[in-house]
Amino acid sequence: MPRLLEYGEAAPEAQAVFDEIKAARGIEDVNNFWKALAVDPPLLRRTWDSLRAVMAPGAIDPVVKEMLYLAVSMTSGCAYCTASHTAAARAKGMTEAQYGELLAVVGMAAETNRLAEALRVPVDPQFD
Amino acid sequence: MPRLLEYGEAAPEAQAVFDEIKAARGIEDVNNFWKALAVDPPLLRRTWDSLRAVMAPGAIDPVVKEMLYLAVSMTSGCAYCTASHTAAARAKGMTEAQYGELLAVVGMAAETNRLAEALRVPVDPQFD
Amino acid sequence: MPRLLEYGEAAPEAQAVFDEIKAARGIEDVNNFWKALAVDPPLLRRTWDSLRAVMAPGAIDPVVKEMLYLAVSMTSGCAYCTASHTAAARAKGMTEAQYGELLAVVGMAAETNRLAEALRVPVDPQFD
Amino acid sequence: MPRLLEYGEAAPEAQAVFDEIKAARGIEDVNNFWKALAVDPPLLRRTWDSLRAVMAPGAIDPVVKEMLYLAVSMTSGCAYCTASHTAAARAKGMTEAQYGELLAVVGMAAETNRLAEALRVPVDPQFD
Amino acid sequence: MPRLLEYGEAAPEAQAVFDEIKAARGIEDVNNFWKALAVDPPLLRRTWDSLRAVMAPGAIDPVVKEMLYLAVSMTSGCAYCTASHTAAARAKGMTEAQYGELLAVVGMAAETNRLAEALRVPVDPQFD
Amino acid sequence: MPRLLEYGEAAPEAQAVFDEIKAARGIEDVNNFWKALAVDPPLLRRTWDSLRAVMAPGAIDPVVKEMLYLAVSMTSGCAYCTASHTAAARAKGMTEAQYGELLAVVGMAAETNRLAEALRVPVDPQFD
Repeated sequence: MPRLLEYGEAAPEAQAVFDEIKAARGIEDVNNFWKALAVDPPLLRRTWDSLRAVMAPGAIDPVVKEMLYLAVSMTSGCAYCTASHTAAARAKGMTEAQYGELLAVVGMAAETNRLAEALRVPVDPQFD
Repeated sequence: MPRLLEYGEAAPEAQAVFDEIKAARGIEDVNNFWKALAVDPPLLRRTWDSLRAVMAPGAIDPVVKEMLYLAVSMTSGCAYCTASHTAAARAKGMTEAQYGELLAVVGMAAETNRLAEALRVPVDPQFD
Repeated sequence: MPRLLEYGEAAPEAQAVFDEIKAARGIEDVNNFWKALAVDPPLLRRTWDSLRAVMAPGAIDPVVKEMLYLAVSMTSGCAYCTASHTAAARAKGMTEAQYGELLAVVGMAAETNRLAEALRVPVDPQFD
Repeated sequence: MPRLLEYGEAAPEAQAVFDEIKAARGIEDVNNFWKALAVDPPLLRRTWDSLRAVMAPGAIDPVVKEMLYLAVSMTSGCAYCTASHTAAARAKGMTEAQYGELLAVVGMAAETNRLAEALRVPVDPQFD
Repeated sequence: MPRLLEYGEAAPEAQAVFDEIKAARGIEDVNNFWKALAVDPPLLRRTWDSLRAVMAPGAIDPVVKEMLYLAVSMTSGCAYCTASHTAAARAKGMTEAQYGELLAVVGMAAETNRLAEALRVPVDPQFD
Repeated sequence: MPRLLEYGEAAPEAQAVFDEIKAARGIEDVNNFWKALAVDPPLLRRTWDSLRAVMAPGAIDPVVKEMLYLAVSMTSGCAYCTASHTAAARAKGMTEAQYGELLAVVGMAAETNRLAEALRVPVDPQFD
């Protein structure tokens, strides 16, 4: 199993990031992804800062951002990310009906992505 | 270049699908993806029927479905699909600000997907 | 554009491989893949020796081996390999009807692969 | 663990699909993939209908279709699909010698796919 | 073609990043990747800041960092990134002999990665 | 679980490869990857011969070759290969600081690879 750093084992710079995550999310402990990243404090810091900026309220609704994140995670086949972002999307309001439709889009897109590449379809001029 | 079947060259079963696509979208000609799929009329028929069902109005907003489709296409690196679904998402109302945020989510998720797998992070019990 | 080494520019060890490929396939010139690999003669040698061994007559029919190679190439999204192995499979006897069915299997598998991972389905005991 | 719906928990539309799968395959219970898909009955229905059509007897031998499905599943790195389609291919007649050669083709294609993209080899005119 | 923003068309925040890139690299114009990212100035800013931090001198030699970046780019099949990081690695000192060996490692790893997944090999206890 | 062939169960040709691996690495037993490959002795032989040639001392430092192999394995999402090559890179001298920087490069490259493809950035003339 990979090394997961608990709060007491982490460097001060990593503890500071853990504190920010816990405060921002109102949780008592960070999830394993952050404990694993803590082996490299600068990487942990950059990842958290970027994630917070990318997922901040903006032009796209927060639950939609989570659903996009989930669709990407499913497509790259990351089991950890699929599990954590399914939970996050539900926490932000994704319904079961929406989850079913998201699955359908992810599966359908996987199929047509593959077919378009298998057939080496040239891009239509109107799309450029 | 791959073979693209124009209407006059396509089998009657393929022409029927072309007709449905043109009617559903209010366009004068189908895009290259369908012309390439026409080499196998049953595959063309199944793909169109499934796509129409998956993208039909439902629990997820149509523009969000297109943005999910686009995020998946970008993630699987399908240039054709990225071009066609960027156009489709804009046609359904995706703004430039939303496009920028979608790009940011796709890029960020690619990074954390890779890190979670590189570190082989075990799924937290609360996500299961 | 990448560097492609023509016969006269290639190292003697690379020319020897070019000669073997031309003799084995009864062609007058090797295709671009081999000219690109010639930048590293030991890599060119290993790749050709392995490919010849893997594709040699055996328990799987030669045209089926080419169709498997093509299905993998489509799935990894390699445009060059998709083009060259489509041609090779046709040269070994793949019919248009078989090509259509192969496309359908590749697309369908892409979809169910993604769904199985998106749902994180546990392997059934009888499959192990 | 993801949610798997047993027959008694599934919606009537999902039970109907379970019944068809059991009848078509002569088995007493469906495998986990279908129980997971049952969270969205329309997706379950479409996936089964398409799979049945794609894998039906046609121009490609059934065992070859399974081997193609398996090669794609191995290439996209789907562990569940690799396990289930290895079992299915063996049930349809794939021998151990054929399995070994399939592995060799999948591995070899992965290597040359990567090299062709790493070298950005342009497609030869005769392949187009 | 995607939209590429030249200096005069870019927002002031994007121009500031362009200026930093040109100064850091001693070049007269930024390459297309940055002009494309300029459609979303905050994404451009975050990407440049992270890249500069990640590629800064550290425990790994700069030319090795570029070779790692190149190996990843080849593996994800990004043609643009493969082209740009091949140039960058050469500029930082990668020799032709090293380039040939890097290609060989990338190809070999692609093959064994696929085989390990195709065989679903369990991780040995000593690796954990 | 996949079939793993212990020395006593393996064919003589496979035992010969096991002997070479044990001698080359000074270990008492081969790791699971080789036991799994032993189901097809010619594939086992080719894989070991190629791996030994590719990883032999050359223009790139052995620890750097292992780090490249690891970066590719992380990028293709092969958990087994990531575990085994993390161990191998550490055994050859990769420090914890280098491991942290390698993770950062792999994550960063994943993000920019995706963005370059999402934006379909054309290759700059100076890179060709």
